[in-house]
Amino acid sequence: MARRQREISVSEFFLKNRHLLGFDTPVKALVTAVREAVDNALDACEEAGILPDIKVQVREHSNKARVVVEDNGPGIVESQIARIFGKLLYGSKFHKLSQSRGQQGMGISAAGMYGQLTVGKPLHIISRVKGERLASEMYVSIDTARNQPDIHRKKQLTWDRPHGTLVEIELDGHYQGGPHSIEAYLKQTAIANPHVAITCRDPRGKDIRFDRSTRELPLRPKEIKPHPYGIELGRLIQMLESTNSPTLLRFLVDEFSSIGRTTARSIIELAGKLSDRKLSDRSHPRHVAHVQAVALHRAIQKTRILGPRTDCIVPIGEKLLLESLRKELNADFLTATTRPPAAYRGNPFQVEVAIAYGRLGTDNLEIDRSGHMHKKAAQDPATAEQLIASRDEPVRLLRFANRVPLLYQQPSCAITKAVTHINWRLYGLHQPKGGLPVAPMAILVHVASVWVPYTSESKEAIEPYPEILKEIKLGLQLCARRLAHYLHHEAQLHEEYDRRSYIEKYLPHIGIALQDILALSNDERDSAVRKLDGALHRSRTTTRSISSSALPPEASP
Amino acid sequence: MARRQREISVSEFFLKNRHLLGFDTPVKALVTAVREAVDNALDACEEAGILPDIKVQVREHSNKARVVVEDNGPGIVESQIARIFGKLLYGSKFHKLSQSRGQQGMGISAAGMYGQLTVGKPLHIISRVKGERLASEMYVSIDTARNQPDIHRKKQLTWDRPHGTLVEIELDGHYQGGPHSIEAYLKQTAIANPHVAITCRDPRGKDIRFDRSTRELPLRPKEIKPHPYGIELGRLIQMLESTNSPTLLRFLVDEFSSIGRTTARSIIELAGKLSDRKLSDRSHPRHVAHVQAVALHRAIQKTRILGPRTDCIVPIGEKLLLESLRKELNADFLTATTRPPAAYRGNPFQVEVAIAYGRLGTDNLEIDRSGHMHKKAAQDPATAEQLIASRDEPVRLLRFANRVPLLYQQPSCAITKAVTHINWRLYGLHQPKGGLPVAPMAILVHVASVWVPYTSESKEAIEPYPEILKEIKLGLQLCARRLAHYLHHEAQLHEEYDRRSYIEKYLPHIGIALQDILALSNDERDSAVRKLDGALHRSRTTTRSISSSALPPEASP
Repeated sequence: MARRQREISVSEFFLKNRHLLGFDTPVKALVTAVREAVDNALDACEEAGILPDIKVQVREHSNKARVVVEDNGPGIVESQIARIFGKLLYGSKFHKLSQSRGQQGMGISAAGMYGQLTVGKPLHIISRVKGERLASEMYVSIDTARNQPDIHRKKQLTWDRPHGTLVEIELDGHYQGGPHSIEAYLKQTAIANPHVAITCRDPRGKDIRFDRSTRELPLRPKEIKPHPYGIELGRLIQMLESTNSPTLLRFLVDEFSSIGRTTARSIIELAGKLSDRKLSDRSHPRHVAHVQAVALHRAIQKTRILGPRTDCIVPIGEKLLLESLRKELNADFLTATTRPPAAYRGNPFQVEVAIAYGRLGTDNLEIDRSGHMHKKAAQDPATAEQLIASRDEPVRLLRFANRVPLLYQQPSCAITKAVTHINWRLYGLHQPKGGLPVAPMAILVHVASVWVPYTSESKEAIEPYPEILKEIKLGLQLCARRLAHYLHHEAQLHEEYDRRSYIEKYLPHIGIALQDILALSNDERDSAVRKLDGALHRSRTTTRSISSSALPPEASP
Repeated sequence: MARRQREISVSEFFLKNRHLLGFDTPVKALVTAVREAVDNALDACEEAGILPDIKVQVREHSNKARVVVEDNGPGIVESQIARIFGKLLYGSKFHKLSQSRGQQGMGISAAGMYGQLTVGKPLHIISRVKGERLASEMYVSIDTARNQPDIHRKKQLTWDRPHGTLVEIELDGHYQGGPHSIEAYLKQTAIANPHVAITCRDPRGKDIRFDRSTRELPLRPKEIKPHPYGIELGRLIQMLESTNSPTLLRFLVDEFSSIGRTTARSIIELAGKLSDRKLSDRSHPRHVAHVQAVALHRAIQKTRILGPRTDCIVPIGEKLLLESLRKELNADFLTATTRPPAAYRGNPFQVEVAIAYGRLGTDNLEIDRSGHMHKKAAQDPATAEQLIASRDEPVRLLRFANRVPLLYQQPSCAITKAVTHINWRLYGLHQPKGGLPVAPMAILVHVASVWVPYTSESKEAIEPYPEILKEIKLGLQLCARRLAHYLHHEAQLHEEYDRRSYIEKYLPHIGIALQDILALSNDERDSAVRKLDGALHRSRTTTRSISSSALPPEASP
C-alpha cells in the first residue's frame, strides 16, 4: 500500500471536486465565472481608489459560453498575470485581515481551470497598468499536476483603455434567467455597491445597465492585525517562532491589534506568575518555551483588552442602502439598520439588515394632505420587481457578504438560520413552523468582515458562528419592529377606509333626510353634507396616531 | 499591490478555514477527529483483508480532550507515517477510482493540525507492520507554511499488538451526547458495517460496545478506470498528453473502462470523419492536435459504449442491512432495498434505502397464532431506541456515504432533498409542505460510489447531482410503498381491535340474555359464549388479507 501513497496537487483536488468551487452545472458555472471576474474587478478598482466601471458580455454557441469581463481598474503588472490567473491559492488577500470580496486566491483561476477542463482553451487576459504605454496580452492555463501556470502566448499591444483588465473565459456554460441568474447577481451587486456602474450584454444581445447612484467611493477599509482574544495557543506558538520582533514586548505590540505597551507589560507579568519559568519584556520570542507560551496564552485571556478596531469594516450604511433599495425594488415600505461592529474568533464583523415590504401596484392605500384616502395606482406587472416575494410566497432573502450577493446554498447559511429562528408571528406575519415567513417582502442581510467564514470555497453561504447569528437576529428584530408598526398602521387605514366608504355612500341620503326635516334649500343641504364630510375627515386624521402597546418589546435574542 | 501577491499553502488555507474540515466548534471537532481516525482504520483493515477491531477512548480534562483510536490493521511503514499524518492532500485514495471511506488525504492530518493549533501538541502515532519485530513510535506536527510534516521524536519499541496502528490526538474538544455524538456516529457505523467490532470508553469511563454480526468481510471493491462518457474535453487532452500508451488504440483500451479494441477502432474512425485531419489507430497520443481531440471527444459521446463496470461498488446488501437494523433499532416494521448501480459524470454509484417504522413499546398490536389480539408489551423508555423519531417529530434520517454515517449539514444533502421531494401523503404519512414527513420512523439511505461528491471537505453531505437524486427517490418510493401496505394493515388491525374489544365487553351480557331466553344451564351458557367468541376470531382471521388498491403505483420520479 505504501507505494501508492502520493501527493495530491491542490489543482487536481479542486478539479475533481469542482462543485466545491461552484462549477457543478453549466448554469451555475457561468454565473460563478462572471461573479469571480466581477468581484476581482471591484476589489482592484476600490483598492486603487477608482470608481468602478464594469462591462460584462456573455455569448453562447452550441453548448459553450464565452464570458468577457472588462474593468477600468489599475491593471496588473505583467510578471504577476500568469500566477494570478493560472494558479490556485495565490493572491494578496489571504495573508492579511482586511474587508475584501476575494480572500482565497482561487476564484478566477478556478474559473479558468473549469474552462480548460470543459472546452480545452486557456484564459485570455489583457491588462494595462496606469502610466504604461502598452498593454500585456496573455493566454494562460493551469498545469494541474503541479498547480503552476502555463503561458501559451504573450505579447504587448496598444489598447484604447488607459488602464484596466479584460479577462475572457470560454467554458461549458448555459445562460438562464430567474433568481440565480447573472442579471439577479448584477442587480443585487448594484444594490450593495451604489458607487458601481455595470453594463451587461446577455446572449440575446439585450443590454442591461445599472447606473451608479453615488460618485463617492466607500471608505477604504483599514487592514488590521489579529486580535489577541481570537488567537489559539498553536497559532501563538507559531507566531512566536516566526516573528521578526526582537523582544516579547515588541512582539505583543507589533503583531496584535489593541495591545499597547502598558497592556503588553501586564500580560507578560501575569504570564510570569502563571508559569514556573519567568518571562521578561526583553525575552526573545523564539526562546519562549512551550509552558511559557501556554502561560502567555492564558494571561492574554485573563487580561482586559480593548475590543478590535472597527475602522477595518466599512458597511454600506443605512442611507445608501435605503436609496439603493428604493431605486431597484419599488417597495411600499423600507427600513434598514446598521448594527455596531462585533467580533467572532477575534475577527471583527458588522451586520446590516433591511426589510422591503409590499410590491407597488397591489392594494395599498394612501392619505393625501387633506386627509382623503386613495387606492394607489396599480403598476404594470411586467416591470414589477421580482426581488420581492408575492403575497403567498416565503419572503425573498437577499444575502450579502462583503458586498457580494450570495445566490446559492441558502438553506445552510447563517442568514437563513437567523431569519427562521425569529418568531415573525409576533410582528404580524404568517410563518410556517421552522420556515421563512410568508409575506410580500424581501429581507436583505449584509455581513461585512475582515474574514468571512464561508461554508465552502464557492463562497455561497456563511457559517453560522453564534456571534454572527446573534448580530443578524438583533438587526432583524429592530427592522421587524418597525415593520410591525407599519403593518399595524396599514391595517388601521384599511379599516378606516372601509368605514369611510360606507359613510360616504350614505351621506347624500342623510342630506336629503336633513333637507326634509329642517326644510333646507338645495344649497343649504349641500353645504351641510360638505361640513359633515369635513368633520368626519378631521376626526380620522386626529385619531391617526397609532398605539403600539400590542407590539413585542425590543428583546435580545 | 503586486508586491503583496503570495502563494498560500494548502495547510494555511484550511487552518484559517478549519470549519471546512469539520473543526468549527469543540463538540464537532471531537466527533470529526474520532470519525477521521476510525474511517482510516476501517479502510486499512478492509484493504488488507482483516476483520476490523477498533478501540476508541476519549478523555476530557479542563477544556481539552484526548482521543486515542487503535486498530488491528496492517500497520504503516515507518517512512510513510510522517507524511500520512503530517501533510494535507497526501494519500493513496485520491488518484484511483475505488470505493473507500477516505478519498482526499486530508482528514487525519487536519485533525492533527487542529490539535496542534488549539493545544499546541503534535500527533502521537504507534504503528506496527505485520511481520516486523518492533513498532514505530512518532510525534508529528505540520509545518503549515510549507504543508510538510515535522517529526519531533521517533523511536522503535516493542508493542503487544502483532500489527495495527494507534493514533492519539490532544485537542480543544468537548464530549456531548445526542444525535451528533460520538456514540451516535459509532452506532450508525455499526449498522452500516456489520463486520466491524468497536469498543468505546467515553469520558465518564462508560464502555460502549458494538459487536460484529457477521464474520464475513464485504467483498473488496475493484478499482476501475474512468468511464469515457464522463470525461471532459480538457481532461481527455490532458490524458493524451501524459499517457504512456504508444498508440491511440492502446490509449483508449488501457486508460478507460468499457472500451475494447472494436469500440476503440470505431471511435477513432468516427473521429477521423468528424475532423478534417485524419486519425489512425497507430497515431501517437501526444501528437493528437486540439481539433482532433475535439473530434475524438465528440466521437466518444456518439459511440454506443457499455455502462461502467459495477463490481467496483460493494453495497451493504438488503439482508445484512435488515439484520443490522433489527439489532440496533428495535422497530415494528423494517424494509430495505438495494438499487441497481448507476453513474453520474461517468462515476459508478449505488443507492440503498431502508425504512424502520414504529418504536417498540408504543401502542402496537399483535395477533397470535390462534387469532387473538394483544397490545405489545411496553419497553423501558430509558433503553428505547433514539434513532427512530417519536410520533410527533420529523422522521430521523440516517445518511451514509461509502458506509460512513453523515451527521452534520443535513439540510444541504442530496438525501434530504430526495426525501423532502417525495409526496409522503400518498403513502399515508403526515408531511408539512416542503418538509420531512412526521412519523415514528427512521429513513436510512446509503450512497456508495468510487467518488462521492461531498459538498465540503468535511464530508458531511452529498452534492445533489440529478442522477443521484433520481436513484435515491426510486429507492425511497419502493420502501414507502411497502410501508404503506404495512400501515394499511395496521390501521385495519386497530379498527378490528376496537370492534372486537367492544363485542368482548358485551359477550357475557349476551350469554346471560341467551341463558334467560333459552333456559340454559351455566355450563351451556359459558359454552355458547366460547363458541361465539371463537366464531368471531375466525371471521377476523379470514378477512385479514389486505386490499392495496388505494396505494399509489410504483411511479418513476
